[in-house]
Order: sequence, then C-alpha cells, then structure tokens
Amino acid sequence: MGKRIHNFNAGPAALPLSVLEEMQSELLDFKGSGMSILEVSHRSKWFDDVINEAIERTRRLLGIGDAFDVLFVQGGASLQFCMIPMNLAMPDRPVDYINTGTWATKAIKEAQIQGKDVRVIASSEDRGFSYIPKEFSPNQDAAYLHFTSNNTIKGTQWARFPNAGEVPLVCDMSSDFMSRPFDVRPFGLIYAGAQKNIGPAGSVMVIIRKDMLARTPGKIPTMLKYTTFAEKNSMYNTPSCVVVYIVSLVLKWLEETIGGLEKMAGINQEKGAIIYDFIDGSSFYRGTADNDSRSLMNVTFRLPSEDLEKKFVADASKEGLGGLKGHRSVGGCRASIYNATGVGAVKALVAFMAEFERKQG
Amino acid sequence: MGKRIHNFNAGPAALPLSVLEEMQSELLDFKGSGMSILEVSHRSKWFDDVINEAIERTRRLLGIGDAFDVLFVQGGASLQFCMIPMNLAMPDRPVDYINTGTWATKAIKEAQIQGKDVRVIASSEDRGFSYIPKEFSPNQDAAYLHFTSNNTIKGTQWARFPNAGEVPLVCDMSSDFMSRPFDVRPFGLIYAGAQKNIGPAGSVMVIIRKDMLARTPGKIPTMLKYTTFAEKNSMYNTPSCVVVYIVSLVLKWLEETIGGLEKMAGINQEKGAIIYDFIDGSSFYRGTADNDSRSLMNVTFRLPSEDLEKKFVADASKEGLGGLKGHRSVGGCRASIYNATGVGAVKALVAFMAEFERKQG
Repeated sequence: MGKRIHNFNAGPAALPLSVLEEMQSELLDFKGSGMSILEVSHRSKWFDDVINEAIERTRRLLGIGDAFDVLFVQGGASLQFCMIPMNLAMPDRPVDYINTGTWATKAIKEAQIQGKDVRVIASSEDRGFSYIPKEFSPNQDAAYLHFTSNNTIKGTQWARFPNAGEVPLVCDMSSDFMSRPFDVRPFGLIYAGAQKNIGPAGSVMVIIRKDMLARTPGKIPTMLKYTTFAEKNSMYNTPSCVVVYIVSLVLKWLEETIGGLEKMAGINQEKGAIIYDFIDGSSFYRGTADNDSRSLMNVTFRLPSEDLEKKFVADASKEGLGGLKGHRSVGGCRASIYNATGVGAVKALVAFMAEFERKQG
Repeated sequence: MGKRIHNFNAGPAALPLSVLEEMQSELLDFKGSGMSILEVSHRSKWFDDVINEAIERTRRLLGIGDAFDVLFVQGGASLQFCMIPMNLAMPDRPVDYINTGTWATKAIKEAQIQGKDVRVIASSEDRGFSYIPKEFSPNQDAAYLHFTSNNTIKGTQWARFPNAGEVPLVCDMSSDFMSRPFDVRPFGLIYAGAQKNIGPAGSVMVIIRKDMLARTPGKIPTMLKYTTFAEKNSMYNTPSCVVVYIVSLVLKWLEETIGGLEKMAGINQEKGAIIYDFIDGSSFYRGTADNDSRSLMNVTFRLPSEDLEKKFVADASKEGLGGLKGHRSVGGCRASIYNATGVGAVKALVAFMAEFERKQG
C-alpha cells in the first residue's frame, strides 16, 4: 500500500488503522464461515454475534442498562430528523428545539413539515452560530427538548448538556458520540450517524429509552417506527450488515485498545489543548467559535485571507495532511479530530501550521 | 484464508471472489488517496467517481438513457414500500398491486397504512403463491401498477412482465435485478435491494422515470422524497459510501468480466436448466413452484420428509454447500443461485443432491 495520510475529514472520517487491517484480514473468510462478512446471512449466528457484540459494547461503554434499546437504523441522521417528531411528539404538547447551526435548523424544519407545534427555545443564530446558548429556560410542558451536542460545521460543542427536568432530552450526537462519557439518564433518545466516531457512513445508532416507545403512533409506515426496530433487534428487514460489522470493530478498539470513554475523553482533551493553545498563541490563525463553546471534535479557524486559506489547504495536502477545508457553506479551515485521529496527527498539523505561518511572514 | 464455501444464501448472498479481492487489496489506500474508501469524504472526487461509475455502468447495462434517474437510497426495499405510494399516488386515481407473495403483501400493506385507494388486481394466494398470475386485466385508471418480479421465498418469477398500457409499472426487482436484460420503457420506477445480485446489504438502487418526479407532494419529509435524491445525485446527505463502492465493483465485474446482461442471462439459464432438469427427473426431490412460474434465482424444493430436509441441509453444510434452508416462514429447501453463484457451484450442488438421494435409497 501507499503511505497513509493524516486524515482530518469531517465525516466520513479517519478509522483506526487496526480496524481496517482486521477487516482486510478476514474479508474473504469471516471467522471460518467460508464467506465474507458481506456474504453471510443477517439471520445467521455469525451476524447475530456481530450485532449483539456491537450492542453490548455500547451498553458497557456508556454504562446503560435495560432501560434503553440500542438500534441500528439506515438513512442517516437526516432521516432521524423526521422520525423523531413522527414517533415522539404528543397531542397537546409542543416539541422544543435549540438551534445551534445547520443540522439543528434542518431538524427543526422536518418537525415543521409535519405540522408539529415547534418552539425554538434558544438559538445562537444572532452571531452566526459561533457559540452555545446559555441563557434560556426549558419548558416543562414539552414532549421533548431536542439539541445538537456538537456542531460539525461551526465548530461548537456543548460542554455541559441542558437540564430540562422531567422533559426527555433528544440529542443529535452524530459528531461527538463516544468521544466522552456522559449520564444517559436525562435522555429519551440519542442518535448518531456512524461516520464520525464509530464507523463508516451507512448506519445511525439510536439509543432510545424504552418508555418512549409507547409514544409511537399506530398508523405510520412500518420502517419509520422505532418499535419496528426495537421489537426485531434492528432486523425487521436486512440491516446494513457491513456497516454494523465495522461499528463493532471500532467499538472493540475503543473498549479494548483505548480503554473506554474516560480514557478517550482524556486523549481528546489532550488533542484539543495542543491545537487550541497553538491557535490562541497565534495572531495569524483565528478560531471562529467562542472560547467557552469550542469543539474538541471540529476545530474551525480562519487565516488572514481566503487566498491564504486556499494555499494552506493545498500545501497541507501535499504534506499528507488531508481534509482541512472548511464546510462549503462557511469557508475557512477545519480540522476534524475525532477519536481515530491520534495525538501524533494533531502534533503534525500544528507543526505544519507553525511552518506555514513562518513562511508567509 | 480458509476454504470458501459454495454459498446459496438468499441475501445477503455470494459476491464474485474477484470483487472481494479487489476491495481487500485497496482497503487501506484507495487509489493513492492515502485513505480507505471507508474514510474518504462523500464530497471528494474519489467518491464522486465511484458513484458516477456505478450509475453509468447501470445505464449501459440496462440500456437506459436520460429519461431515467439512477438513485441510491438507504432503508431497504421495505422503506420503498412506503415511499412509493407516498410519492407516486395521485388524487382520485387508485394504486394497483399484484400479490405474488410475502414481499408484495408487505408492499400492499404499506400503501394501505397511508390510506391510499389500493386495488389488488391479481393474486396467487389461492395456491400458496406457487405461481405467477396470468388471467387478469390491468386497469387504465391506476396511478401505477406494482408487482414483484421474483419471489425470493416462494421461488417464482415473472418470465414476461405484465403489460399495463399507459399506466407506469412499478417493480420490486430486488431478487432478479441485473440477472437478465429487459425493456425499461414501461416502468415508472424500479427498485432493488443490493444484497442479492449487485452488492452487500445497505442500499437500494432506485431507477425512476424523470416525469414521475413531478408527482412527489411538497409536504412530505425531505428524506422520503425521490426528488431529494434526484436533485443531489443521491447525496443530499451522506450516502452509504462503502455499499455504493461495492456495487460499483460488482457492476464492473458484470460488464467487463461477464460481458453484460445477455451473457449473464445465458449463464443463469444454464444454471437453472442444470438444477431444474435434475429435480424434474427425480422422484425424491419435488419443486414447489409451477413449472411455468419457477425462478432462475431461487430454486425451492422439498424432500420426502422434514427430517430428511434437516439432514439434507446439515450434510450439505458439512460438504461446503451453505444456505440451503428454506425461508423460516415456509420451510423446505432453497438454493439461491444469483449472478455470483457460478455454474460450478450449481453442478456441485446437483452432484451432492444425487449422492444424498442415493444414500437414502
């Protein structure tokens, strides 16, 4: 193989090399089955073991017990934006949302399309979604309170989650899921596209508190009901087996190689400190998010001009540092440093940034 | 690696060995990117080339021009069961269905859940779905006529598709898509789960005639609109990149190694003749489908007793012939012989069947 780059993609994103090597080594013959994991039946013991291992590792990593179901659903977080109000809204109770950026805005829009009584109780739109709102009071009459834990495009992240009392939290955790431990008890539903921290694109993990399942109305399409997935261990129909398999390998790496979420959070803190300390000490690079709101997953920054930003991204790519262009909707630069992007990659990036600044000086 | 078996799974199913080997060889570094195909951005030139190659090969293999869009949608054919009536039903025009088995029944149910005016214009339920209906007259006032081209569970297949005049055909082609050439012009929409003939589980290919897109109502969820997929080349949100990639490799094999759908159909005819001629000449094995309706993809048969069927499946497995158990809802035996299951595998199966019969005699 050729040389592997340092991958700062926002998602699909870097995977642990050991996961890719494990998949490669057993791709023609999965565990003595004489078949690839791509070829085994989803009704076989081989695949049952894969999906159940992924679920059990998730339970252990997050410390969740029997009160929650762990599901695999296709269609991306974008399909969850419509499934959540369809399943979890309640008669005569509004659904509350906090708007912290592009993805939250889309989630709100899908609830509105269905004619739900949507309240946006807090927003950081006034300053271009560059911060996490602090001054707001969750309502106690809502069916749920939806928020986005990390904002991939704007580079902001909730350091502490909102407290809505008895109202269940519903969270799009796509871009920082499994990056740190947290208390699952206030959550009615957590969802995360796999393609940032836990696998490749093609599956969403949904963690739903079992009492929420009673809210699913009878007359909605079968494949849009959480109950369909909960009752059949995510196998009412054929799941995306290869994606679930890779998720199971990533979760094994997280549990056995890294040592769990406390350890992972420590490494992510270390990576964030390296790059943010560098940016804070520079007058050439400028972070775009408020200091108290910035993300440990997506580091967004600007250079003195758009021309320099283009040159920065191009030169970095030549040096084996990929994926540093900001989202097309906002421009600038972005380094996504998810779980699988190691301390070494972040140090290499900071060394390149220092050298690039020096050359322009 | 260990010895690979002859894989007669109904889906997920056998893939060409050369496809698995190609994937394996470039799994750590896709085309000099320094990243796995699992790690490249769906907004990159690398992935654009992959999805566009899959679409162009599909156009060439089926001989379809610009009148159709080729889409990749997650959620399985089961999600299509609800998307089709949601998008393609029309005011004051019933939706017509032909019921030939389990999957058609589920498609009908999803249209009914949405309160559509559903007419079942033909059914083979009277004889356990063991045949394809012949005596029926399609209505000319329907929004569409839906049928299932091949019935995986019951082992039946349409030899010639129904003619509904100006009414667009909508077809679940999951289990015989790309197994033979056909005229796409009467079809408004064709859909096929990848996990039988064109890839692993985790994506559905949808081929939609562009004029059908005008039927999509405004106020349905974004991710359930065909227009969302058509307008963004299936990348409104992140697609299941790894599945699309493997589909592109399988289509390359079909076009370049096999030589196209005429050639593939010839091989499938040959395979079918080998096993059906053997069953027809045996009094020990008994096919379950009417002769004029039997499938070249899923060969369903019974033995003199359920005990013998159990022994047959178990002994075959020991001899490296896997996946021969019938669907759990009907019992018996089933050999799925999709595109990637070669003539050699079918000959090995028939040799085993002859030897098994001899041993019982």
